[in-house]
Amino acid sequence: MLTLRSRQAEVLPSLKKPEREPFRIAVDAMGSDDAPSAEVEGAKIASAILREMEVPCTIMLVGNNDQIERIIHPKRSYIRPSRLAQIQIIPAEDAVTMDDEPAVVVRAKPRSSMVIGLELVQQGKADAFISAGNTGAILSAATLILGRIRGVSRPTIGAFFPTSEGKECLLLDVGANVEVKPQYLYEFAVMGSVYAELIQKISRPRVGLLNIGEEETKGTEQVRAAHLLLKNSSLNFVGNVEGHDIFTGRADVIVCDGFTGNVVLKFAESIAPLLKSVLRRRAQLGFWEKLRLKVTANTLRKVLADFDYQKYGGVPLLGVNGVVIIGHGKSSSQAISNMILRAWEMHHLSINKRIEERLNVEQNNTAAGE
Amino acid sequence: MLTLRSRQAEVLPSLKKPEREPFRIAVDAMGSDDAPSAEVEGAKIASAILREMEVPCTIMLVGNNDQIERIIHPKRSYIRPSRLAQIQIIPAEDAVTMDDEPAVVVRAKPRSSMVIGLELVQQGKADAFISAGNTGAILSAATLILGRIRGVSRPTIGAFFPTSEGKECLLLDVGANVEVKPQYLYEFAVMGSVYAELIQKISRPRVGLLNIGEEETKGTEQVRAAHLLLKNSSLNFVGNVEGHDIFTGRADVIVCDGFTGNVVLKFAESIAPLLKSVLRRRAQLGFWEKLRLKVTANTLRKVLADFDYQKYGGVPLLGVNGVVIIGHGKSSSQAISNMILRAWEMHHLSINKRIEERLNVEQNNTAAGE
Repeated sequence: MLTLRSRQAEVLPSLKKPEREPFRIAVDAMGSDDAPSAEVEGAKIASAILREMEVPCTIMLVGNNDQIERIIHPKRSYIRPSRLAQIQIIPAEDAVTMDDEPAVVVRAKPRSSMVIGLELVQQGKADAFISAGNTGAILSAATLILGRIRGVSRPTIGAFFPTSEGKECLLLDVGANVEVKPQYLYEFAVMGSVYAELIQKISRPRVGLLNIGEEETKGTEQVRAAHLLLKNSSLNFVGNVEGHDIFTGRADVIVCDGFTGNVVLKFAESIAPLLKSVLRRRAQLGFWEKLRLKVTANTLRKVLADFDYQKYGGVPLLGVNGVVIIGHGKSSSQAISNMILRAWEMHHLSINKRIEERLNVEQNNTAAGE
Repeated sequence: MLTLRSRQAEVLPSLKKPEREPFRIAVDAMGSDDAPSAEVEGAKIASAILREMEVPCTIMLVGNNDQIERIIHPKRSYIRPSRLAQIQIIPAEDAVTMDDEPAVVVRAKPRSSMVIGLELVQQGKADAFISAGNTGAILSAATLILGRIRGVSRPTIGAFFPTSEGKECLLLDVGANVEVKPQYLYEFAVMGSVYAELIQKISRPRVGLLNIGEEETKGTEQVRAAHLLLKNSSLNFVGNVEGHDIFTGRADVIVCDGFTGNVVLKFAESIAPLLKSVLRRRAQLGFWEKLRLKVTANTLRKVLADFDYQKYGGVPLLGVNGVVIIGHGKSSSQAISNMILRAWEMHHLSINKRIEERLNVEQNNTAAGE
């Protein structure tokens, strides 16, 4: 996440004394397009930052032992083992690819880095798991191996959108659930709110329901029923929001079905390439046009960096019994490092416990109100 | 439509001799934000162009007589009545507003410009109807008054998206049907194909099904069933397309449910404002930053004009028994003129007859294949 560095500074002072229990994270070293080197380098960067923050940690790189060793101990350099920040290799013979059918990964590839990494969390040997691999497979394997948080019907994957206010908007679901019930949308709203409150430091996050009009009567039957659930909850519900409200920052958290969310997410990711190609087509003219284009392209590059959010930090898988972050296949070592730090934050702030509590409170409120 | 002018040139030569029967169009003069002046000026521009093309026409401005007369005959100027291109006023005491409930407009406002204009088409007194008013009301009133083309289950509204290839992509539905059956999606594909073939001059338009993955097994049950219908049709079906394919131009026509389509359309409309605000925030620095911004903003203005497609020409309402074009509330006189010319094209090329024939052929093919 682009804004993670500034958040680290915010989090840092709250750590009065070093934590005794080390933060243990399992990293799927075979996930990204550039695996395992992005993962190994990312682990090194994150361990250095955590060491500086006096957070004891053990980063477990799960994957092909030889490939990881070759990168982790190149002949010319040597990582100094540290009491505070350790990097370990957990061998895994197999790896999940993009072609693997998500639903059967646990059964078909029990010795894959993804399955072994998640099992470390399930067995209590790791506090978090991150992977830049097959999103559907992570979702499916994590749900199967870790189970769901009490009160959660369906885990959800969120994504961050830049807004014109400069803050981020968390849209969920973006593909984990193609069809949703009103109850699911309501639970997504609770999970998103807790995330925005704890991690994005937004007090009473504004929750919007993605719809095709502002009126309560708009949308499908499911969406109309979800509107009522949200309206009667203790969440800071700002009502229906429309497609154009994602970018305007009218809400901090927006919930929708995973079909719509996925289409919008992928559509958003294609804005930068479209603008670039349109600009390029316009630049077949003279010298001044080319110069103008160059200036424009440079400015745009900075602006459009905001759109490449996935590359910079991954997105949380919320609702499973464990901290899990999913990264883009194109994750750089910087992105992997950000994912590790984000996972630490989520663990440190006990986000899953808070989600469980919040869902429990909400349910009691609803029951009392009936 | 931005590209209409070039298409006029293509259409022009095919008119070997002037048409005998004049093209008669009913224009809702009370629809746009700037009504009736945008409509009156738009009618003047269109009548001049049609006269030049030797297309006899009668443009009926339906609306408040006094308001229209004041604009159409200002003291200082005088429109020369022409044998070829006539502009008439059809008085209507009432007007549909954005606050009117679409479903009851026909009953609640029988003397509105929208209802009277559509009735002119139904009675055979006009060949087409255009309006820049309340979209839901136009959809509802047109379906009720004109009825559906034989073989069409649900009328649909499409919208055009710019692509990196420079062509346009027609996405339908964008809000007329929040929930769809597989058969509807298939019919949208047929209607979109006929439109792209006749109006956009694309031979064998590529049809895509909006989904969250390329595999046939992806998506909701409805979408998977639609995939099969499209695959077994005689359409040029290119398979599932994803959110990012809208801009890449992988398909000429993309079909989806009206909920997803509406969210994507409104999201797309918000891209330009977001970029502008982000640029503005970055420009709080020195002289060079401001200069850079100015150059960038100027270049972007041209590029982003492509995104304001609705302002430039309106979108077709396909599937009703009559030519109907819906414009953006912010339609300029140029946009109104483009809508009138587009309506003439649709009428001249008998688009609805072709849709009926095509649906009939398709159904026979399917029946024969069974």
